Amino acid sequence: MPMGCERKLNFGAGPAKLPLSVLEQFSRDMINFNGSGIGVGELSHRTPLFERDILEEANRNLSELTGFNRKDWSILWMTGGGTGQFAAVPMNFAAGTNEEGTAIYLVTGTWSEKAAEEAKRILGGNRVKVIDLRMEIDGIKGLRPIKDFKEEGAFCGSISYVYYCDNETVDGIELPDADYFQNQLSDFNVPFVVDMSSNFLSRPMSKSERTGIIFAGVQKNLGAAGVTVVLIRNDLLQSGKIKAAAYCPSVFDYRLTAKNNSLLNTPPVLAIHICNLVLKDLLERFGKLEELDSFSRQKCKMIYEAIERSDGEFYCPISREFRSRMNVIFKGKRAETENEFLLEAERAGMIQLKGHRSVGGLRASLYNAVTFNECESLANLISRTTRNTGNV
Amino acid sequence: MPMGCERKLNFGAGPAKLPLSVLEQFSRDMINFNGSGIGVGELSHRTPLFERDILEEANRNLSELTGFNRKDWSILWMTGGGTGQFAAVPMNFAAGTNEEGTAIYLVTGTWSEKAAEEAKRILGGNRVKVIDLRMEIDGIKGLRPIKDFKEEGAFCGSISYVYYCDNETVDGIELPDADYFQNQLSDFNVPFVVDMSSNFLSRPMSKSERTGIIFAGVQKNLGAAGVTVVLIRNDLLQSGKIKAAAYCPSVFDYRLTAKNNSLLNTPPVLAIHICNLVLKDLLERFGKLEELDSFSRQKCKMIYEAIERSDGEFYCPISREFRSRMNVIFKGKRAETENEFLLEAERAGMIQLKGHRSVGGLRASLYNAVTFNECESLANLISRTTRNTGNV
Repeated sequence: MPMGCERKLNFGAGPAKLPLSVLEQFSRDMINFNGSGIGVGELSHRTPLFERDILEEANRNLSELTGFNRKDWSILWMTGGGTGQFAAVPMNFAAGTNEEGTAIYLVTGTWSEKAAEEAKRILGGNRVKVIDLRMEIDGIKGLRPIKDFKEEGAFCGSISYVYYCDNETVDGIELPDADYFQNQLSDFNVPFVVDMSSNFLSRPMSKSERTGIIFAGVQKNLGAAGVTVVLIRNDLLQSGKIKAAAYCPSVFDYRLTAKNNSLLNTPPVLAIHICNLVLKDLLERFGKLEELDSFSRQKCKMIYEAIERSDGEFYCPISREFRSRMNVIFKGKRAETENEFLLEAERAGMIQLKGHRSVGGLRASLYNAVTFNECESLANLISRTTRNTGNV
Repeated sequence: MPMGCERKLNFGAGPAKLPLSVLEQFSRDMINFNGSGIGVGELSHRTPLFERDILEEANRNLSELTGFNRKDWSILWMTGGGTGQFAAVPMNFAAGTNEEGTAIYLVTGTWSEKAAEEAKRILGGNRVKVIDLRMEIDGIKGLRPIKDFKEEGAFCGSISYVYYCDNETVDGIELPDADYFQNQLSDFNVPFVVDMSSNFLSRPMSKSERTGIIFAGVQKNLGAAGVTVVLIRNDLLQSGKIKAAAYCPSVFDYRLTAKNNSLLNTPPVLAIHICNLVLKDLLERFGKLEELDSFSRQKCKMIYEAIERSDGEFYCPISREFRSRMNVIFKGKRAETENEFLLEAERAGMIQLKGHRSVGGLRASLYNAVTFNECESLANLISRTTRNTGNV
């Protein structure tokens, strides 16, 4: 039987499924990388085998796939995950040219809320203004539009940056498009910072020139846990808008990391290598982010439609406009519907379908490595459970 | 031909050689971990497959191998490498009960010097006192003893912690034993912080009750780059001596990390798994740190003796007392000796023998995965080069 034949259908929210071909290549590379006679985990990060064949290639592939030009953007490979970036962002604006400015956090769910809390702790509560956009009507969650900043009580002199999360993994809420907030705030010429941890490389990124930083833990769409990719517009680094506070750890200093091409200290070689293998695979199979968006839309459509067709046996507690393409949140009408579903899922080899422990219910994450067929199997399971429990 | 048959002899300083059996197991686990039907890189960190079978097992194995009892010590798995810890250490003492105390840095080489610089930046120069112990006589480097703190100009009221590096990877200088500084400073009841990045798990650690924190990037003796292990005495966490400054990133907060059992956010699952595989291997083959010390001593002895026997064709620029068991630094009498040696090494499949770019010369790193036979081959190469170039 070929390797990997009995693999489960993994709908985990992250660390998540990876393409089997990538895993197989990576396994071989662990023993002997590019014919070097040593494994990729044994490579010095100061050799061309890493700097040229992994790091530089990953940068090139990421630039090609995203269309983000390397003259205008720096690509940083950092550690500490999204939670590390929650601290790195305020620290890196803290000594910049607008160091007295207010940081505005647009809160749309669990992760942007956590990011705001971290920023408040670091910058002090008076330097961080939270605009909570979450709303719920009859148990259905969504986002309200932003009033103007004055009305929100946020506009207190100058703004150092506006922060938001493009896709809220726990809540299953995704912005309708990558320029959603930029368009609403078109009057303000401030840098936007975007957490795309869970929808990075699943659709085109913001085209706005005000988008200054995009970061993502890679363990959803791009790789295995252990590295965080940060895209920063070079003019932010060069103009002095970004300058780290004296207390910022060197490993979280954007300018220092950019200057050292992510080689300030030993980088997580294996994690970057996996990203590069995934990038090659995405380039080959999709070529550009528009294709990945279409792929993601088709996949989640199957699931949302199966939920709709369940006649209320299952329902999605998110308003249509904000339903995530990545993390489909749904619930059973009754506890037994969910239990029956999870039991049947297990029998069918489908795993990681429970909702986040903070919200309960069910969640299917449909990252880039999850295939059409797998989504179809899941949609069928929803329909089958509907018929079974509908008759109870 | 079996996998890995043509592997090079890797004397790299880190990321470094890993045991082939570990690489092979890891490669299999990347496709299907413990019969779960998914790879280890695809596991949720919130499942027993990670929490119990990897994280908890790694903690248990580390405790068993080191003899560090888990009642008294917390084991933290963090990211950011040693350089991350250079910042984490001062940040975590910065709001503790002795927050006004001075941090004393004993500088013995490149890495302790960098750590002191990071601490100065974070705490301010007036809160950090550097005692530089490096000395050089006739081109031979070593360490001078510490005078008492008053004489060193360091004793300014209270001391929050004393920091040192047990083995300086770049300089090839290792402390003669793990209690070397603790013994010299026996009058001071202060916590010691020890960077053991490059000699962790190669000999018993300090027995002193004043040793409060031991940290190590794992990519030398314990695993592949991507995780940093931190051992902290629980009474430091509980007594309030350690309390992170408000500006400390959550991911670098020791108390928060301990409280969350290293699961505050997504940990670097793969890197921790490799450590666990290496720990199992070390336990099986050596059982305890005393055995690894003896192993390390025998290995480096072969190399240092071959250098001695070269009649000055090669020499070691480190005084006998401080020669590292891990990183053997040596030089050729003439440039051609070094070139000839490197050329012959390449022919013999031995790699990564150049000295660090900041010091030049030659360096052979003999971490735990480097075998007796490999050291013997290297010793023979030194002897062979001696004969060849001695006749030039």
